[in-house]
Amino acid sequence: MSEIMDFALSKEFLDRFTLAVEGQEADFIQSSLEGVKPVDITELLEEFDAEESKYVLDLLAPQVGAEVVIELEEDLQGRFLTIFSSEEIARYIDCLDSDDGVHLLNLLSISRREEVISLLENEEKAGHLLDLLRYDDDVAGGLMAKELIKANHNWTIKRCIEEIRKQAENVQKIYSVYVVDDHDKLLGKVSLKRIILADDNTKIADIYDSDIAMVETFVEEEEVVQIMQKYDLDALPVVNVRGKLMGRITIDDVLDVITEQAEEDIQMMSGISADVEEDDTVWIISKARLPWLVIGLVGGLLGAKFISLFEADIALVPVMAFFIPLITATGGNVGIQSSTIVVQGLANSSVFRDSIFKKLIKTFLVAVVNGIILAIIVFGIVIFSTSDQTIATTVSTALFSVVLLASFMGTITPLILDKLGVNPAIASGPFITTANDLLGLAVYFFVAHQLYGL
Amino acid sequence: MSEIMDFALSKEFLDRFTLAVEGQEADFIQSSLEGVKPVDITELLEEFDAEESKYVLDLLAPQVGAEVVIELEEDLQGRFLTIFSSEEIARYIDCLDSDDGVHLLNLLSISRREEVISLLENEEKAGHLLDLLRYDDDVAGGLMAKELIKANHNWTIKRCIEEIRKQAENVQKIYSVYVVDDHDKLLGKVSLKRIILADDNTKIADIYDSDIAMVETFVEEEEVVQIMQKYDLDALPVVNVRGKLMGRITIDDVLDVITEQAEEDIQMMSGISADVEEDDTVWIISKARLPWLVIGLVGGLLGAKFISLFEADIALVPVMAFFIPLITATGGNVGIQSSTIVVQGLANSSVFRDSIFKKLIKTFLVAVVNGIILAIIVFGIVIFSTSDQTIATTVSTALFSVVLLASFMGTITPLILDKLGVNPAIASGPFITTANDLLGLAVYFFVAHQLYGL
Repeated sequence: MSEIMDFALSKEFLDRFTLAVEGQEADFIQSSLEGVKPVDITELLEEFDAEESKYVLDLLAPQVGAEVVIELEEDLQGRFLTIFSSEEIARYIDCLDSDDGVHLLNLLSISRREEVISLLENEEKAGHLLDLLRYDDDVAGGLMAKELIKANHNWTIKRCIEEIRKQAENVQKIYSVYVVDDHDKLLGKVSLKRIILADDNTKIADIYDSDIAMVETFVEEEEVVQIMQKYDLDALPVVNVRGKLMGRITIDDVLDVITEQAEEDIQMMSGISADVEEDDTVWIISKARLPWLVIGLVGGLLGAKFISLFEADIALVPVMAFFIPLITATGGNVGIQSSTIVVQGLANSSVFRDSIFKKLIKTFLVAVVNGIILAIIVFGIVIFSTSDQTIATTVSTALFSVVLLASFMGTITPLILDKLGVNPAIASGPFITTANDLLGLAVYFFVAHQLYGL
Repeated sequence: MSEIMDFALSKEFLDRFTLAVEGQEADFIQSSLEGVKPVDITELLEEFDAEESKYVLDLLAPQVGAEVVIELEEDLQGRFLTIFSSEEIARYIDCLDSDDGVHLLNLLSISRREEVISLLENEEKAGHLLDLLRYDDDVAGGLMAKELIKANHNWTIKRCIEEIRKQAENVQKIYSVYVVDDHDKLLGKVSLKRIILADDNTKIADIYDSDIAMVETFVEEEEVVQIMQKYDLDALPVVNVRGKLMGRITIDDVLDVITEQAEEDIQMMSGISADVEEDDTVWIISKARLPWLVIGLVGGLLGAKFISLFEADIALVPVMAFFIPLITATGGNVGIQSSTIVVQGLANSSVFRDSIFKKLIKTFLVAVVNGIILAIIVFGIVIFSTSDQTIATTVSTALFSVVLLASFMGTITPLILDKLGVNPAIASGPFITTANDLLGLAVYFFVAHQLYGL
């Protein structure tokens, strides 16, 4: 129906394309990629190694090639850039928006970075890039692009349209024209709709909207995302401390940040310590997983040490050992549930959030409800199947206590981590599970030891 | 600096505002909310009950009130709507875009829905709403709004601008004008930028862009999100099977879908079965958590039953019991890590994804690497601290096998769930942990029983 739907990358096409790349069939490659969207070409090239991909890229117009490269995964970009000459990189950056350009520059060594900038044809862009390089990539200044359309408040609509005509080639998506005073201080914006509907001789000053959201360059990525999402903004202008218009952040960049943050949180919750993908090498995936596995291992060994204190008890009453997995698993599950609710609460931060005290009370009540229900179920099943009142009492009492303690741990840990400035999502992972395993064992054996009068 | 930054909801303001609501100080409420963004008023009202909020809403202009209500959490909206009369709801819906209007209608009973629609002042909107009500809310038809600007390909730019002028009030964000033929079949689009730069007498047919992405009404939400994110679209037109333009989906709606999906996945991974929030009632939170806790409990009880088969072994060699938590915890951690990587791989679906066979081989290799490293560490520590070669061999052999098996389970489970059409994120949660606990115990006791020659 539309081109997007048409370019269905089939296994057959991939096979044919692979042959073309190996046989260096330039004509076939060029004609089959004609009119294909850059992001689709990126997906295709991810099936080839860097040298093969470079052969294909060299056959494309620089504008297309640049957009294909910018859509690549970051680690692939890094690998690609090493086989490109500085001239080639400069040619690509000349075709890219400044925010994408600076992203590529940030992947280069400092000396190479300077070489590439000196090779740029577009001097205005070189200036923009030098400006953007000053910001960390997780603040508003690092997310913004310099490309935008601005109009002086004294201009007429006619003059403004001329400016749009001049800039139109550089700025892909306009959304609004930003209105500034003689010192480039941001005053407000005029939407394109308003410009279309206004009379040519209307003065910008008379129609612009001064009720405009803006952020300063140092505002953190998370806050930028929150503001744009909350107020449904397509673009957010960035200003310096004196209110001077420095750039703008567009919604597509924010979308990528949101997706990345969600993936990162999920990986943290799963105990994967680096940003790994399914198609990374075996060694990279193994390395990303090992740290948390080792932490879990140390927890397990401490648990073994702890249980060994009750060796005599177990020898006498082996039934005590039967319920170890039940206790540790429940502790783990409750802990992760609690911490997830707290972590999501922290993310959707509201100004009038419940006080920590109120949170703990609520957690406590939920734990009491669930603890009682689980304890009753377990007591019933154990007494029915073993007729051993002591073990039924031991397991259900310990289970109830573990639910309470694990809830408390699961609630308090992310709050503390958040206060310390650590991403609290980490608390929903193996960390909580390991701590709760130990806690659960302690409670269980303490209760068992008491009730059996050993 | 800007209004957004100015309206910092302080504890003090909330206290003062609470007094005003209790004392029904209409003047204070109206003047303090003057010019405040609807979403900020929503945040404020979430601190009050439905009756109090209604008092405040009645003091606001219907346009503002409608936007405040639409920003509320869905369950609060439901509670609000019950205390509003059908006339009041109709007045709000008259002020809203059709996608937001249909969202409110969907929260009402069918009979009340019809009553509200019959009360609408805007007849065109009533038709739009009846049309939208036909779609499920998780397909393109359910996400789209009917408000958009379309132009016939035979029109001139001048005529097109007149149309924009006529429609401007109804359509907040224009992005592009959609170009259709005489039968409303979607042909392409013209960006506002192009309209501004074109000559008044230019024909639309000569300048429109026919390379446009579109989806049919029945396309699923997830695919809509994927297309808009992949191609960086601000808006996506929706057509029926014959290509007739039916509506458009805007990026702000997609942003909300992405955030919701991520939160849902995380809740599934944490074993929370309904969409709960930190500020839901104790009973709602308890109920959402119980199902997975009970599943964990049943797993634990099966584990107990299983261990009881080895009661005699444990009585003779109590040290066997010490390492139960180590085995189960490692199995759980490995399983969740594996399934998370698979689930994220499924989400970033690429056409040329590795075959299942290749995936399993890779998982196996990662498991072998991690399994060997963990087994060596455990063997070293156990032999060093107990000098008991049998238990060191037992634990490290079992651990290695558990890492292998848990990786396999963690990889295969989400793949199977995905094939069955179930959200695979569920596999990263208590489900995998419980299965792996049992698997781990089986391997451990089997190995122990063999090595001790019991």
